[in-house]
Amino acid sequence: MQALLDTLRQLLGADQVLVDAAATAPFLTDWRGRYRGAALCVVRPGNAEEVAAVVRACYAAAVPVVPQGGNTSLCGAATPDSSGRAVVVSLGRLNRILTVDPQNNTISVEAGCTLAAVQDAARAVDRLFPLALASEGTCQIGGNLSTNAGGVQVLRYGNMRELTLGLQAVLPGGELWDGLRGLRKDNTGYDLKQLFIGAEGTLGVITAAVLKLFPLPRTQTTCWLNVASPDLAVDLLNRAKTAFDAQLTAFELVSEVALGLVLRHIPGSTRPAAASPWYVLAEFSDADPAAVERWLGEQVESGRVGDGTIAASEAQARRLWALREAISEAQKIEGVSIKHDVAVPVSAIGEFLARADAALAAAFPGIRVVAFGHVGDGNLHYNLSKSDAADNAAFLASQPAVNRIVHDTVHALRGTISAEHGIGQLKREEILRYKPAVEIALMRTLRRAIDPRGLMNPGALPGAE
Amino acid sequence: MQALLDTLRQLLGADQVLVDAAATAPFLTDWRGRYRGAALCVVRPGNAEEVAAVVRACYAAAVPVVPQGGNTSLCGAATPDSSGRAVVVSLGRLNRILTVDPQNNTISVEAGCTLAAVQDAARAVDRLFPLALASEGTCQIGGNLSTNAGGVQVLRYGNMRELTLGLQAVLPGGELWDGLRGLRKDNTGYDLKQLFIGAEGTLGVITAAVLKLFPLPRTQTTCWLNVASPDLAVDLLNRAKTAFDAQLTAFELVSEVALGLVLRHIPGSTRPAAASPWYVLAEFSDADPAAVERWLGEQVESGRVGDGTIAASEAQARRLWALREAISEAQKIEGVSIKHDVAVPVSAIGEFLARADAALAAAFPGIRVVAFGHVGDGNLHYNLSKSDAADNAAFLASQPAVNRIVHDTVHALRGTISAEHGIGQLKREEILRYKPAVEIALMRTLRRAIDPRGLMNPGALPGAE
Repeated sequence: MQALLDTLRQLLGADQVLVDAAATAPFLTDWRGRYRGAALCVVRPGNAEEVAAVVRACYAAAVPVVPQGGNTSLCGAATPDSSGRAVVVSLGRLNRILTVDPQNNTISVEAGCTLAAVQDAARAVDRLFPLALASEGTCQIGGNLSTNAGGVQVLRYGNMRELTLGLQAVLPGGELWDGLRGLRKDNTGYDLKQLFIGAEGTLGVITAAVLKLFPLPRTQTTCWLNVASPDLAVDLLNRAKTAFDAQLTAFELVSEVALGLVLRHIPGSTRPAAASPWYVLAEFSDADPAAVERWLGEQVESGRVGDGTIAASEAQARRLWALREAISEAQKIEGVSIKHDVAVPVSAIGEFLARADAALAAAFPGIRVVAFGHVGDGNLHYNLSKSDAADNAAFLASQPAVNRIVHDTVHALRGTISAEHGIGQLKREEILRYKPAVEIALMRTLRRAIDPRGLMNPGALPGAE
Repeated sequence: MQALLDTLRQLLGADQVLVDAAATAPFLTDWRGRYRGAALCVVRPGNAEEVAAVVRACYAAAVPVVPQGGNTSLCGAATPDSSGRAVVVSLGRLNRILTVDPQNNTISVEAGCTLAAVQDAARAVDRLFPLALASEGTCQIGGNLSTNAGGVQVLRYGNMRELTLGLQAVLPGGELWDGLRGLRKDNTGYDLKQLFIGAEGTLGVITAAVLKLFPLPRTQTTCWLNVASPDLAVDLLNRAKTAFDAQLTAFELVSEVALGLVLRHIPGSTRPAAASPWYVLAEFSDADPAAVERWLGEQVESGRVGDGTIAASEAQARRLWALREAISEAQKIEGVSIKHDVAVPVSAIGEFLARADAALAAAFPGIRVVAFGHVGDGNLHYNLSKSDAADNAAFLASQPAVNRIVHDTVHALRGTISAEHGIGQLKREEILRYKPAVEIALMRTLRRAIDPRGLMNPGALPGAE
C-alpha cells in the first residue's frame, strides 16, 4: 500500500494525494451523513490522462477505486466501504468546459464540471442545457451521467442518457476510451457510452462528455391547477400533451398533504388557490400564453380542473415552483420520514397510489402519505411521515416493512423501485428481489467481463462479489 | 445436423422449418441482391418462447443463428454466410400488437410487426409512432431496433434507441429476458436494452419491445427553400430551431445536382422554385402557419433564403417530399453509383462537403457528387455518380479509393462512416480502420462475454472471430 501511495504521489504530486483525516473526511461520508467509509487515500487528478494513470496503478495493486463527483448521491453510491482499502478518485479538478458548438447544439465538458457551470456555459451562447436539479451548484456532470440523472424536465428533454452524445471514460484496467463524438446518428456497432451512463462508476470512470444543447425558451407559462384525483391529473397531462406537445415542459403532481406541510413549516409560503386533494404544477415553454389560458378555461369549464391560477409574473411563477421544491424541506422539519423514489407507467399512477395508500393504512394506522413528483414521467416521490401517535424509533423500525409494501406494489404494476436516484449501497440487496434472475445474471456477466478484478466501485450495484 | 433439424421440427412443427431451395431462397439473399448465403434451414417460430427454444437448440448444437426481420438491410446484416451451417430465424410470425396504452403513451409490440403496422396501431388511438422509412411496409420492428433506425424525423423524435422504453430478447444461450417495461425513468443498474439496440442481432434476438408514442400533429407546414451553400443551410437550421424548437420536425438538404437527376428521370416532377445550388425541405408540425410564413419572409428579406415556397395544400407538400424521396430512384436510373451514409457534427457539414468534393474532383475528374440528407442530424447520403466519360466498370473499380477519400474526410471531422444503415457485412472490415483500438477491444469483450460461442449473427459487425 505504501508503494501505491508513492506511485500516486509521483503521478499527481503529493498535494493531490490526501491521506490525513481532516483532509479526507469530506470525501468519506455522503452529504446526508448516512454512509461513512474509509480509504487508503483520496486523489485529485487534474486531467483524463492522470485519471487513467491512477486507475492503472490501482489495477496493478489490486486496490478498489471509488470515483466521486460532487458527492451528492442519495444512495451512498460514491462512499467507500469501511475497509480503508479503496482509493477515492475525486474528479473535481477536471472542471473545464472543453468546447461549445452552438451550430451543432453541443457542449463538450470534463466530468468535474458542476451542472450549474454547464448550464451557464450553454446560456452564454444562447442555448439551454436542460438538466436541472436541486443540487446543481454542487453535483458534477460525471455523477449526473453515472446516475442517469432526471429532474423536472425529463418530460420534454429526457434523462441524462438522452442528453448525451459522446463520452470519454477510463476503463477498469486504466485504458482511456475516447468516444467524445458529437453525432446525432452513429450506427457503427455497440453504443458503448450507454454502458457507462447509469453504471454508478462500476464499469469505469467517466472523464468527459459531449452533451446536447437546445434553444433557450423565450417565454414560460406556469400554472397551478386543482384536480380531484391522480387519475384526473394523468388525464389532464395527456390533454395538455395533445394540445401543446413539446411545449409542455413540466407536469408535477402535489398532494394536499404535501402542500399542507409546506404551508405549515416554510415561512412566507401561501396557498395559491382553493384547497383540493391534489394539485398539478404545469409549465409551458414558448407556448402562446393566450392559448394556455384558453385551454385552461376549457378544463375548468368541463370540471376537470377545479380551480387554477396562471402565474402573472416571473416572481409568481417562482413562488409556485418554490411550493413544489420546498416539500422535502418541510417534511424534514415535520419529523422523520421514510422515502421512496418509484416510477410506474403513467397510466398506473392512480392505481399505485390507491393500492399503496390502502395497504399502508391497514398495516400502519395513522401513517401519513406525502406524495408528489414528476407525474409526466410516472415518477413519484412517495414519502411517509409517521402518525402523530407513533414515536420516531418505532416508525423507523417499521421501514423495512413499509418499503416492502411500497416496492411490492410498484413491482406488481411493472414499475421500478429507483426511478432517478439509483441503487448505490442503499438498494443493492433490495433490487435482487425485483429484477428477473436473467437480468441480474446478465448484469454480473457484463461487470465481470469489463472489470474482471472487481475493483470499480465495488460497493455500488449488485454483481461485484 | 439432422438431429438439430429433427429437434427444430419437433419444436415448431415441420411446416415452420423450411429447407427446400425455393422456400428458403427469399431469406438467403438481401433485397438488393448483393449478398447471397446458404443455411441449414429457415425457421419461423410463432412466439418468444419458440424463439428461445430454437436458440437453445442451436446453442447446444453449436450452430450459428442469423435473426431476420423484413430483410431490408442495406449492409447485408441479415444474410447468412455461404457455409450453409446457420439457422436463419425469421421473426415474421411474431407480428402481434401486444398492448396500446394511450395514457402512458406506449405501445408494446412483437418484433415481427412491420413498422407500418405499428404506425397504424398508434394512429388508431390518436397517437404518433414517429419512425418513418421508405421500407416501412416491409421492415420489421426487430430490425429497426437491431439497426437503431433513423429517418427524416430524428431531428424531433430521435432514433429508434430514443423511441424505446422496454425490450424482450432471447440471449445467445436461449434464456428469455423480459424487460418489457414502459417506464420513462428507471435507474436500477445497467440499462440492458441498450446492448441489443443497434447490435445487429449479435448479442441476442429481440422478440418484443415497448415503444414511445407522441401526440399526432394536427397540422404540418412544408417549405422548399433555396440556399446558397450548406453552411447557410446549417445557419438556417439553427434559426428555425430557435424560432420553432420542437415544432421543426424535418430539415432536409438537397443539392441542385440531386434535384436535377429527379427532374430528368422521374416523370411528372417539376421544379418547385427558381434554381439554386442547394435546397432545404423543412417541415413544421403544429406551428402557426402565419408564424412560419412570417419567419420565412424575414429569411428571404435578409437574403439568407433566395427563393422559397410554402406548400399550399397537402398535395403540394407531398409533391415536395416526393422530390426528396425520389433521389435514390433517379440516381439508379442515371446509372451506377457509389453511396455513403455518413454523419459529421452539424457544424461541420459545409467543411465536409468542401473537403470531400475537392479531394474527389482531384482524384477522379468529372465525378459527380449527388449529396442530400438529414442535415438536421449531420447525416448526409453522399453519393457519387460516374463522370460521363468514365465507363461503369472503371467507375466501380474505383470504389475502394472513393470510399477511402470520403471516409477519411469524415473521420478527420470526427464523423461516422455509418450514420443510419449499420455495419453488417458491408463495413465489417472498413470500421476497423476508424474505431479506436480501445473501442474495438471493448466491443469484442462484450460480444465474447454475452455470446462466448460466437454463434449470434457471426457475419455482422467485427468481433465474432
